Amino acid sequence: MSSGETSIRGRRRRTASEPSKRKINYHDLRNPFPPMDVFSADQISAMHETAFRILQELGVKVLLPEAIEIFRKAGARVEDDMVYIGRDVIDAALTNAPKTIVGKTGVREKDLTFELGRLMFQPGAGAPHATDLVRGRQPGTAQHYRDFTKVNQNFDVLHMLAPSIEPQDVATNVRHYFTTETQLTLSNKFPFVFSRGTPQVMESFEMIQNFRGVSDAEFAANPHTYSIINTNSPRTLDIPMAQGLIDFARCGQLSIVTPFTLMGAMAPITVAGAITLSHAEALAAITLTQLVKAGAPVCYGTFTSNVDMKSGAPAFGTPSHYQASLAAGQMARLIGLPWRCAAGSASNLNDVQAANENQFGLWGSLMAGASVVIHSAGWLEGGLTVSLEKLITDVEVLNMVAELCAGQQATADEIGFDNALSHVDPSGHFFATPQTMERYNTEFYEPIVHDYANIGTWTERGAKDANARATDVWQNIVASDTGVEIDGDKLEALQAYIAKQTAKGGAAPES
Amino acid sequence: MSSGETSIRGRRRRTASEPSKRKINYHDLRNPFPPMDVFSADQISAMHETAFRILQELGVKVLLPEAIEIFRKAGARVEDDMVYIGRDVIDAALTNAPKTIVGKTGVREKDLTFELGRLMFQPGAGAPHATDLVRGRQPGTAQHYRDFTKVNQNFDVLHMLAPSIEPQDVATNVRHYFTTETQLTLSNKFPFVFSRGTPQVMESFEMIQNFRGVSDAEFAANPHTYSIINTNSPRTLDIPMAQGLIDFARCGQLSIVTPFTLMGAMAPITVAGAITLSHAEALAAITLTQLVKAGAPVCYGTFTSNVDMKSGAPAFGTPSHYQASLAAGQMARLIGLPWRCAAGSASNLNDVQAANENQFGLWGSLMAGASVVIHSAGWLEGGLTVSLEKLITDVEVLNMVAELCAGQQATADEIGFDNALSHVDPSGHFFATPQTMERYNTEFYEPIVHDYANIGTWTERGAKDANARATDVWQNIVASDTGVEIDGDKLEALQAYIAKQTAKGGAAPES
Repeated sequence: MSSGETSIRGRRRRTASEPSKRKINYHDLRNPFPPMDVFSADQISAMHETAFRILQELGVKVLLPEAIEIFRKAGARVEDDMVYIGRDVIDAALTNAPKTIVGKTGVREKDLTFELGRLMFQPGAGAPHATDLVRGRQPGTAQHYRDFTKVNQNFDVLHMLAPSIEPQDVATNVRHYFTTETQLTLSNKFPFVFSRGTPQVMESFEMIQNFRGVSDAEFAANPHTYSIINTNSPRTLDIPMAQGLIDFARCGQLSIVTPFTLMGAMAPITVAGAITLSHAEALAAITLTQLVKAGAPVCYGTFTSNVDMKSGAPAFGTPSHYQASLAAGQMARLIGLPWRCAAGSASNLNDVQAANENQFGLWGSLMAGASVVIHSAGWLEGGLTVSLEKLITDVEVLNMVAELCAGQQATADEIGFDNALSHVDPSGHFFATPQTMERYNTEFYEPIVHDYANIGTWTERGAKDANARATDVWQNIVASDTGVEIDGDKLEALQAYIAKQTAKGGAAPES
Repeated sequence: MSSGETSIRGRRRRTASEPSKRKINYHDLRNPFPPMDVFSADQISAMHETAFRILQELGVKVLLPEAIEIFRKAGARVEDDMVYIGRDVIDAALTNAPKTIVGKTGVREKDLTFELGRLMFQPGAGAPHATDLVRGRQPGTAQHYRDFTKVNQNFDVLHMLAPSIEPQDVATNVRHYFTTETQLTLSNKFPFVFSRGTPQVMESFEMIQNFRGVSDAEFAANPHTYSIINTNSPRTLDIPMAQGLIDFARCGQLSIVTPFTLMGAMAPITVAGAITLSHAEALAAITLTQLVKAGAPVCYGTFTSNVDMKSGAPAFGTPSHYQASLAAGQMARLIGLPWRCAAGSASNLNDVQAANENQFGLWGSLMAGASVVIHSAGWLEGGLTVSLEKLITDVEVLNMVAELCAGQQATADEIGFDNALSHVDPSGHFFATPQTMERYNTEFYEPIVHDYANIGTWTERGAKDANARATDVWQNIVASDTGVEIDGDKLEALQAYIAKQTAKGGAAPES
């Protein structure tokens, strides 16, 4: 390899100052991975039938009277807070639920299409703590929330905003003002609203609609925001979750329904049993949205992993997690709805375990044909912490997956008999072939944090591991302007609205 | 979740002392992942045709006169050291090459079947340096070689022995005695022999045949050892590699033919071009084995990644590496031969980059339908170093892949309407269902190094990251007896042979 290495060094001197000209669309991704089945069609059918039995015979506990009333009017049998839903009601809901949903954002090129076959990523969400190598592990703050929003905005491969971190230094009655304003002013991506009671939800919708400058009809016609609705497994729909399903459906905004089930704890210990339960709960929640408004935007979803049976601790990125994702994907294809899956890690820091778990769960989601992969970057401690370094190192993996979505060509130009292969003698090199000269600055993905330097060069540069380099990456992003264009009037109106509502005492979360 | 957590803790007190009873076969793996195509059948056909053109029109430089003569006798055109091979010669070789190869080991349950659809793993191989957190990064020694062999023997998911580390403190004229004796006495798995000239190869075969106690006919009928044959890209077959192909084929031992090509350096910059070149080189080498002995055991292979065009440094676990694996898999399925692919990492330490790259390359190999994944554990710095910690953390991932190979059931028992789902009230837990009680000690994979403890418990236990825990794992293995049964007579005979040959001056490697 010695002659080759010399030539490589020559190439480096010529090109080191030229930025890469590679341009790959990381936004409009279609999943190129062949879907993998873990169960036969008959087994999936048996699980689907058992889910109907669960809903009809065992029932779902619904804690919100308004939701119980909606189910009752549709023909469900109600006993106190137990709702028993017949198959016909669910089948009608599945017929009405849209198979394609377009989410509207601040600019057309950030709009999202939710349907089977698409692929989108959301970073880790819902953590009470944030961690990074500069500040350490801390309860989430407004500053963390802004930092995560800026980093999200910076990477096209993160398709949706996420409530990555709970800003606990902002009072709960005005927190939704802060989170909505931050999302709208630091990003033009699809924003998230927590379903913590109708007052907060309606105020958030109002802020988003006005800031986006869309009419009531436009706001109702396509979702401009979304929420994640977790059931309380097994078989319970609590008040804020049921209220969220109703509020979002009524206003045409997107609910992503996700039973979060841990095999061996709040779900059966088997993949088949846990996904059957999760499926039943998702069908109940989806049905509620369609009873509120036929055609309301709703995504199917699952987040099913296992506990460690020795300690009871949740585990992520395990074989059972992977297989549960595959099974949920089969269910989603059965009912035809766009759906979310999830990666994640149980590790307490961004180490090799964290990387391996997250990527293992990611491949489960990809092979399962997920439309949206939630918690695909930055999630540690089973969701108790999000890490800025992990956000960067996971985005590297997501970028590489997005590169795979772009595919490869193999025309005569790429095969290169005439412009490459026939130009090079045995044991020669390809640095100067016409094919290489044409492509050297566009052919390969250029990493954001991975480092290919040999150990001598790497040591001279400070022997920084991936986390140290990731720290540099996120600090540069956080220190920069995000470059989101903001209409001055809209910003003023938003801030005036928030000031007015805050003066009135804000809106406390409901539970 | 509070009631659930209490119950989980109750479960822990009852079961913490019980070892897992889970028994999954990690040896006989069949690849369960649907093969992924990166090119159309037409494009693959065009690449295959171009490979024939390369061999016929551009030719291969062959440095070993004996090999040139074999090609010439078969009808190839020869000009000095350039050999031009016609399509008919290659087609005949592909017809003769076996589609199924059984590799024989020290015990029947370690025997290997090489064919499309199977899945085997070999750890990182060929490194001049070893690294671990105890000794740091050092030139490889005999002690390192023994350590890597013991760790390999300990994990069923590593199917073959590997020349992980070059024991540089053993003189080169007797090094093959040391490596063969170490492999045979510390392991009963499929051993590796370097093709460094006929004298070393023949002595190694003799040691293995005698130690295994098999007749000449048995040794010739099935391979009892293997080598990796790298071509010198582009289009060069050097003396030791050509000699290895001849010696192994003549004696019925396994050659795994692997052009190691870096896109943009010793191969075209495109995936299509690089795989076309790699395919041509592999076909030439496979053809040589079949000309020596029709039906000789040989595996197709590729190891194709890209260089970083800014620095010329090799990169691994990249999108181009992944796509090259897919393309090679399509080629392997076209010709029907078992084949090897490769994972690996360019990182300089076992950090998040190392984990992400290795797993990304692994998934490329899995989706490509590789029969053997080489460098699947422990490989750093693009092969300049193997790491004992990385060996452990990568084995964790391989174990989880092996778990996926085992699949899942979904009978009524697993779906669990009667033994689980109907036993639990809304918001209850599944710890005490008949289904859970029957399975709590067998249902889930139990990790070797991943830690699911929450941050409080984890901190109390010393806040060890995955590398620190991996250090404990390999040190325990290295400190233990491997438990390989050795026939006293065979050991004595092997040592007597080595003493005799050493006294005669050993056998120097040839190049």
